[in-house]
Amino acid sequence: MTVSATLAANEAIAARRAAGQEVLALGFGEAGIPVHPLLAQRLAQAAAGTSYGPVAGIDAAREAASGYWTRRGLPTDPSQVLLGPGSKPLLYSLLYATGGDVVLPKPAWVSYAAQAELIGREPIRVPVPEGEGGVPEAEAMEAAVRQARRQGRDPRIVVVTLPDNPTGRLASERSVKAMCEVARELDLVIVADEIYRDLVFADGPFPSPASWAPERTVTTTSLSKNFALGGWRVGAARFPASPLGERLREAVRDIASELWSSTPMPMQHAAAYAWSDPQELLERVAASRRLHGSVTSAVAGVFANAGCEVSAPQGGFYVWPDFEPLRGTLAERWGIATSADLARVLLEHFGVVVLPGSAFGDDPRSLTLRVAVPGIYGESDSERLAALVAAEPAAMPWIAETLDGLRAKLAALTA
Amino acid sequence: MTVSATLAANEAIAARRAAGQEVLALGFGEAGIPVHPLLAQRLAQAAAGTSYGPVAGIDAAREAASGYWTRRGLPTDPSQVLLGPGSKPLLYSLLYATGGDVVLPKPAWVSYAAQAELIGREPIRVPVPEGEGGVPEAEAMEAAVRQARRQGRDPRIVVVTLPDNPTGRLASERSVKAMCEVARELDLVIVADEIYRDLVFADGPFPSPASWAPERTVTTTSLSKNFALGGWRVGAARFPASPLGERLREAVRDIASELWSSTPMPMQHAAAYAWSDPQELLERVAASRRLHGSVTSAVAGVFANAGCEVSAPQGGFYVWPDFEPLRGTLAERWGIATSADLARVLLEHFGVVVLPGSAFGDDPRSLTLRVAVPGIYGESDSERLAALVAAEPAAMPWIAETLDGLRAKLAALTA
Repeated sequence: MTVSATLAANEAIAARRAAGQEVLALGFGEAGIPVHPLLAQRLAQAAAGTSYGPVAGIDAAREAASGYWTRRGLPTDPSQVLLGPGSKPLLYSLLYATGGDVVLPKPAWVSYAAQAELIGREPIRVPVPEGEGGVPEAEAMEAAVRQARRQGRDPRIVVVTLPDNPTGRLASERSVKAMCEVARELDLVIVADEIYRDLVFADGPFPSPASWAPERTVTTTSLSKNFALGGWRVGAARFPASPLGERLREAVRDIASELWSSTPMPMQHAAAYAWSDPQELLERVAASRRLHGSVTSAVAGVFANAGCEVSAPQGGFYVWPDFEPLRGTLAERWGIATSADLARVLLEHFGVVVLPGSAFGDDPRSLTLRVAVPGIYGESDSERLAALVAAEPAAMPWIAETLDGLRAKLAALTA
Repeated sequence: MTVSATLAANEAIAARRAAGQEVLALGFGEAGIPVHPLLAQRLAQAAAGTSYGPVAGIDAAREAASGYWTRRGLPTDPSQVLLGPGSKPLLYSLLYATGGDVVLPKPAWVSYAAQAELIGREPIRVPVPEGEGGVPEAEAMEAAVRQARRQGRDPRIVVVTLPDNPTGRLASERSVKAMCEVARELDLVIVADEIYRDLVFADGPFPSPASWAPERTVTTTSLSKNFALGGWRVGAARFPASPLGERLREAVRDIASELWSSTPMPMQHAAAYAWSDPQELLERVAASRRLHGSVTSAVAGVFANAGCEVSAPQGGFYVWPDFEPLRGTLAERWGIATSADLARVLLEHFGVVVLPGSAFGDDPRSLTLRVAVPGIYGESDSERLAALVAAEPAAMPWIAETLDGLRAKLAALTA
């Protein structure tokens, strides 16, 4: 196995910092917002939770998660819910339990492919619909799966991300519906990773695959992004209320029992509170949404002004610029031919840490980058909290200054 | 995959309780001692740890773990340490990273075999030395591995447990040394699961395989048993300071990055405190050791008086009675022929929950049981804390009463 893109980026950052060099850290998918004090309080109050507890999670947390999904248009019984220490081990167990080959959007979050490889499967990558992200284009998926089956491969599961990491786009209802229909026709399990679900910037209906393919869609969530609690490691999966869903849930529970026993108990109590949608936390999530929306929009503007193609971010905290229009200049000036070259030059010459599109399965010769913006929300919790409540976060001096710096670096890169 | 023995036992308990029936829960490997308030305080103070942090663990926790091992006779650099959300995922990743077939003592903790099966390997089981537990008998291991290799199998790793679950025995220095020599000769990686390391009842040197095979032994620990914090989910592995150790550590870190990202940050801060061996916690662990020693000894006495063969427990909180001397009576009276039959009769007729020896890989026709004693320490935290500080814990009324009850049930079983 190769070292993951994130690990490599972290090592590069550490090396530069050790050498006293400046770093603009736009590589890591961390929400960058301090814990809400009420959540910290719940964790502290639950410190006495030293029992392993049930593998699937405590009743209070599964009930809260079922309420969370029910209020978002996916009626859910607690018996459909299974908790895990983050959604990552849940996703791995789902791939393991389903078996067979894994269909992924192109591009897609790095760990889906790495997890598929851990179970011995090379992912089948299907381009996303033009200008969208997070779901494979339906007709292309049908063709790719049928071709793979003719070649003796055994695709059984497709993983989608709404809204998407890396593109920052929310797939359209039309694309999700079409993907769901094809998945049903081809008998694929759908895993809908909705970890950024509450961070969609615009109002409007949310295109959950579980709405159109309820019998075959497993939906996952976590506290890591919506509540900015990556370091607490708690996630949940919602299994379909169908014979397939019951089989999958039992299989994942059995794997969980041998792989991680149970989800940290104090975190489960905090999750039970968070997923009950108390007013204070709804307000905190709304503020986070505004912050992420404001800064992703400003960062996308900086890349657009530098000459990149970039679609407007719609949710989460990522920007996905494509340097294709600048290919000639970049090739001539820096010898850049791939997104890996581009990320390397940005790191080595400008101290900018981003991940190359190829890490997400994009064509190596494309010039796409994934830019995570929370790294610029502030150096301290007080700066981050000030940005969180600001009417115009991108205008806060420390953020505006970083944006100016980024603008200057991109101008130097593309001059 | 089959439902794990623990899951099955939990379901049986829930079903009996739902039916209003009495249950004597001796099935589950939970230490049964409340959290020390200083550990709860550390967790609460670390609630702001919302960053994912490094995959391998934060410096403070890795440094504390290296001190923990160094003070116990295994000099350790923090770079040799990797944290995980419990030792279970670390053990799974070690089996995965090493690849090949897995050698296990017979009997051995249930999850080693289940994890081996998850990576597609049927374990090679080797009997423990007569009267011991936790390590394969060296000559038998050599024969089994050589035979497996002749048959085209590929054994690469042996997992040992000191002190042992299920037998409650601590392997002798002689047996450990002999096993280490054979492992070296056969080029096997050794995983030494020392999760009950600080719960050995007698003073004296501890026979760590890393003392005799330092180049090939990975040692694991956790807060779950020594500090009674199973529900907090934090463990650590110590890799050898050797080229093999470095390769293994990198491989496990890469798997960790895709499987669980990092260990819950607040728990890492608590672990950094616990593994620094503060006086207050050393005293707590010493008291726990006395409690487990007193009650396992009393429970072993109850089984011995009922006519079982049972070796004196030496560490941890388990008793491993063998009903072989009672086989005739049990067969005639109850139709019992296997440990599974025996466990079923104890549950259905007496409400006693224990795990059958066969769940640990013992011969199905043997009549061994694993009895976990902390279920009788008390119904409430105040009872458990009173037992913890009692001069003679087994004489506390609620414990003595349960022992009387167990005595009566065994008398009725074997009459």
